[in-house]
Amino acid sequence: MIIAVDAMGGDRAPGAVVEGALHAARDRAVEVILVGQSSAIAAELARHDSTASVRVIEAPDVIEMHEAPLAALRRKPRASVRVAAELVAAGEAGAFFSAGHSGATCLAAHGAFGLLPQVDRPALAVTVPTLTGVAVLLDAGANLDCRPAHLVQFAHMGAAYAPLAMSLAGRPRVGLLSIGEEAGKGNDLTREAHLLLRGAAIEYIGNIDARDMFTGRADVIVCDGFTGNVALKVGEGVVEAIEQMLREELDAALVSQIGALLSRRAFARFRQRVDYAEYGAAPLLGLRQLALVGHGRSSPRAVASGIAMAAQLAHAGVVPHLASALQ
Amino acid sequence: MIIAVDAMGGDRAPGAVVEGALHAARDRAVEVILVGQSSAIAAELARHDSTASVRVIEAPDVIEMHEAPLAALRRKPRASVRVAAELVAAGEAGAFFSAGHSGATCLAAHGAFGLLPQVDRPALAVTVPTLTGVAVLLDAGANLDCRPAHLVQFAHMGAAYAPLAMSLAGRPRVGLLSIGEEAGKGNDLTREAHLLLRGAAIEYIGNIDARDMFTGRADVIVCDGFTGNVALKVGEGVVEAIEQMLREELDAALVSQIGALLSRRAFARFRQRVDYAEYGAAPLLGLRQLALVGHGRSSPRAVASGIAMAAQLAHAGVVPHLASALQ
Repeated sequence: MIIAVDAMGGDRAPGAVVEGALHAARDRAVEVILVGQSSAIAAELARHDSTASVRVIEAPDVIEMHEAPLAALRRKPRASVRVAAELVAAGEAGAFFSAGHSGATCLAAHGAFGLLPQVDRPALAVTVPTLTGVAVLLDAGANLDCRPAHLVQFAHMGAAYAPLAMSLAGRPRVGLLSIGEEAGKGNDLTREAHLLLRGAAIEYIGNIDARDMFTGRADVIVCDGFTGNVALKVGEGVVEAIEQMLREELDAALVSQIGALLSRRAFARFRQRVDYAEYGAAPLLGLRQLALVGHGRSSPRAVASGIAMAAQLAHAGVVPHLASALQ
Repeated sequence: MIIAVDAMGGDRAPGAVVEGALHAARDRAVEVILVGQSSAIAAELARHDSTASVRVIEAPDVIEMHEAPLAALRRKPRASVRVAAELVAAGEAGAFFSAGHSGATCLAAHGAFGLLPQVDRPALAVTVPTLTGVAVLLDAGANLDCRPAHLVQFAHMGAAYAPLAMSLAGRPRVGLLSIGEEAGKGNDLTREAHLLLRGAAIEYIGNIDARDMFTGRADVIVCDGFTGNVALKVGEGVVEAIEQMLREELDAALVSQIGALLSRRAFARFRQRVDYAEYGAAPLLGLRQLALVGHGRSSPRAVASGIAMAAQLAHAGVVPHLASALQ
């Protein structure tokens, strides 16, 4: 399986991306094409004494995090993220991965691949940890303003994707993210979507209170991209704030060196369960080919996981699977 | 200061409410009027050997959590929350507090009090803990569908209210909750509100990334009520999930009895910092009189804090203060 990787995308690019790509190539048996400024990539490759071989394809332009994505893609036709998307469109790679500007990644993929039939908007499907396993949340930020019909499409895509993202006993339970479980609770968008979802041919379990996002009540959690992105970022922010507070409190309590060590080890394990950034990447569902978006702050380990996830989903045929499920 | 309390409001009403009201009356020197089914209230009062004296006013109807608030208020004209609001409107109490159906509380207060000039929608202002102190988030759920101009009004109300809710060195820094700090990041609502807020006579610091909700970057965080409620509930859900995971992990790590005890004590302290439910209550800003909404799961301690907060805000003259600030 060949995966194109946007070497210039992410807060720590190209360093963390190149290092992660080498890990993926060596440990996960993925063929990687690094796309970006070849001199910068070569400099990073030279820093690693790796036996893994990766190919490099030149793309001179870089889209920065602060840029407006549509204008930036117009202004920079040879941006790394677009060249990576075009490699997939041309059949030279099975998917591409970028930890760069997620808006630009979505637009580049959308432009290069086009939409599946029955889909009006692609959706970013993030796997989040729950108390009982994982859940898929979509849209996580590809569409910031949605209509009720879009949420119904997300629900269908999420239900089709879930069996590839987790082990399931039966049909995935699909919930609508809202501010209470009762049917009437929510804003205009969720209340209208709820009425449509009740008639959809999926296992729709109704509203999911935002408090239950991590309890495992639903396998698939549907929302507009603004709400989904806010929810994920608040979750991240709380984890970070708790880590910092707990460090302060544990110091203040004068816990012994050993006690602190134990707590830190326990804490590292639980953080791994909570930190969805470490899950690697989120696929963009609803397009005719496969693109994955990584967290901007991706570490080399997260990049390697993201590339491995891209290879695994391409191998599992997520796009043809979705296409047939949506018929 | 006299505070009317909806004795029937909350998951643990009337027991937790009556107990909390007795605490507030005894320890916080607040005169409390309990409003609700007087026989149920009397039975709860009889369980406590309290020297505190509280008055009771009969209200035979109760609005349940699952009811649609508008229809329920029409059907139950003598609901406890409405009778409590009417006591304030009649000048018999300085404010009212309810831990019941928050939608019904907002509607009852709105109907009984009316809006201040310059305000089109009241907003629920929740005080959330941050790494550096606290912040005020509004709207926390009174208005689930907002227009950009409403967010500007929330910003003005939040800026006027903040000095009463926290100690501030200068003018409160007002931020707009969004999915990134850049001006262009957000949905249609936040992008339009951002343009309006740049011209407002407040210390507007731009978008606040949802990840920074708890870092203390802003003193006032403005958003629509759906997003605000989702953000708060996700925050609560993460804290609960982390508590459970940490308990599991600490057991698994076979931490010694003493180590566990220390951790639990540290954890209880940090939870107190994180758990905004313990902050008691959130005032509904923008009305001609004062109402406070408590958390549905309020403990007696949270109810007592909420009643004390109502007395403190009424004493501080939050309504005339807002009215003059909004001119």
